[in-house]
Amino acid sequence: MQPSEIYLESLITSTPQEGRNLAIKLARKSIGAIQTDPEIRKKLRSDYAEDTAQLIASAQVIAIEFQTIAKANNYWKP
Amino acid sequence: MQPSEIYLESLITSTPQEGRNLAIKLARKSIGAIQTDPEIRKKLRSDYAEDTAQLIASAQVIAIEFQTIAKANNYWKP
Amino acid sequence: MQPSEIYLESLITSTPQEGRNLAIKLARKSIGAIQTDPEIRKKLRSDYAEDTAQLIASAQVIAIEFQTIAKANNYWKP
Amino acid sequence: MQPSEIYLESLITSTPQEGRNLAIKLARKSIGAIQTDPEIRKKLRSDYAEDTAQLIASAQVIAIEFQTIAKANNYWKP
Amino acid sequence: MQPSEIYLESLITSTPQEGRNLAIKLARKSIGAIQTDPEIRKKLRSDYAEDTAQLIASAQVIAIEFQTIAKANNYWKP
Amino acid sequence: MQPSEIYLESLITSTPQEGRNLAIKLARKSIGAIQTDPEIRKKLRSDYAEDTAQLIASAQVIAIEFQTIAKANNYWKP
Repeated sequence: MQPSEIYLESLITSTPQEGRNLAIKLARKSIGAIQTDPEIRKKLRSDYAEDTAQLIASAQVIAIEFQTIAKANNYWKP
Repeated sequence: MQPSEIYLESLITSTPQEGRNLAIKLARKSIGAIQTDPEIRKKLRSDYAEDTAQLIASAQVIAIEFQTIAKANNYWKP
Repeated sequence: MQPSEIYLESLITSTPQEGRNLAIKLARKSIGAIQTDPEIRKKLRSDYAEDTAQLIASAQVIAIEFQTIAKANNYWKP
Repeated sequence: MQPSEIYLESLITSTPQEGRNLAIKLARKSIGAIQTDPEIRKKLRSDYAEDTAQLIASAQVIAIEFQTIAKANNYWKP
Repeated sequence: MQPSEIYLESLITSTPQEGRNLAIKLARKSIGAIQTDPEIRKKLRSDYAEDTAQLIASAQVIAIEFQTIAKANNYWKP
Repeated sequence: MQPSEIYLESLITSTPQEGRNLAIKLARKSIGAIQTDPEIRKKLRSDYAEDTAQLIASAQVIAIEFQTIAKANNYWKP
């Protein structure tokens, strides 16, 4: 990730589902900010995708990011 | 999980219990978003369902998702 | 846990102590939602009840559930 | 811990420091709710008090409990 | 830590930076509340300061404490 | 990190992306506050950047810091 990369234009999404997708994206981008080599990330990905403890930890990051996004969207209430 | 799959139509539920069920669903879908192969997920499931540390970590994800859902529903206050 | 089981009727409790008890119940029910076999759960219980890392992780789940319950009850302010 | 034990009468404290003390108490009581044998708890205590990973995890539980208590007290603002 | 020690007079700080410093202090005091022997703490410190997993876990405690402090200070908005 | 170092002047940022960058910075500074030797930090960095469990844990710290920053900025709503 270049420091100049912009991956978060807005926290506002049209639907809850898009909010979930954004939460997943933010979680991934955080990992990309620390491990900047895409080749290493690719190799690492196969590690955690078959390790349940790490899958659950990833789900936790997504849940925390989603809290922020859901609040920003006032829970998509009409 | 296909990127086009829509599993979260709304955060609003009729009852607290439905809110819990949704929290569990969201936690599961996050794992599905990372490990997209249903066969591998099935195999992995038997791993964590008998590992108490992972069961507790899963319960934590559910608790965080439920925070968001409960707030969205204003705690189901009448 | 049967999908039709209703273990959360309301987040509202009369006292803070009942709120704590509900938080503990919710944490346990999450584990029950993943590991549905009561015999296995019983056997697993002896594992984590003597493992301090897991006891602490369980306490964390309870703390998160209690945040939600306390907020729902407006902190039991008179 | 007997189910009938009442260890949380109120979330309101006079000072921030009393709020911290209550957070520590709540974290301990959660562990007591799962591991009910005081003799085993005593023995386990020496385990985690010299294990930095577990000390840090305990500090995290205290931080979460304190969030709830601080909010309940409106951050002890005059 | 003596039970009578007062290390948190107020959550209010003049600047965001002082809020960070307070978050770090609170995290440390929690560990001090569990492991009360300063000699053991000193020895343990060298353990976790070179263990990245524990450094990251410590950073998480600081982040949670800071949430509380930032909110108490209304994010230091003018 | 010298105790007198000021790395957080304000929680307010112009854009969500700058908020993300600040969250990453705060997470890093917390580690710097505990492990003060830059040489050791550099060496440790290579450890966690290739360890997926630690990358995920780092992403979680960033997510928590971002919650605070996003709230401080009222989610950058116009």
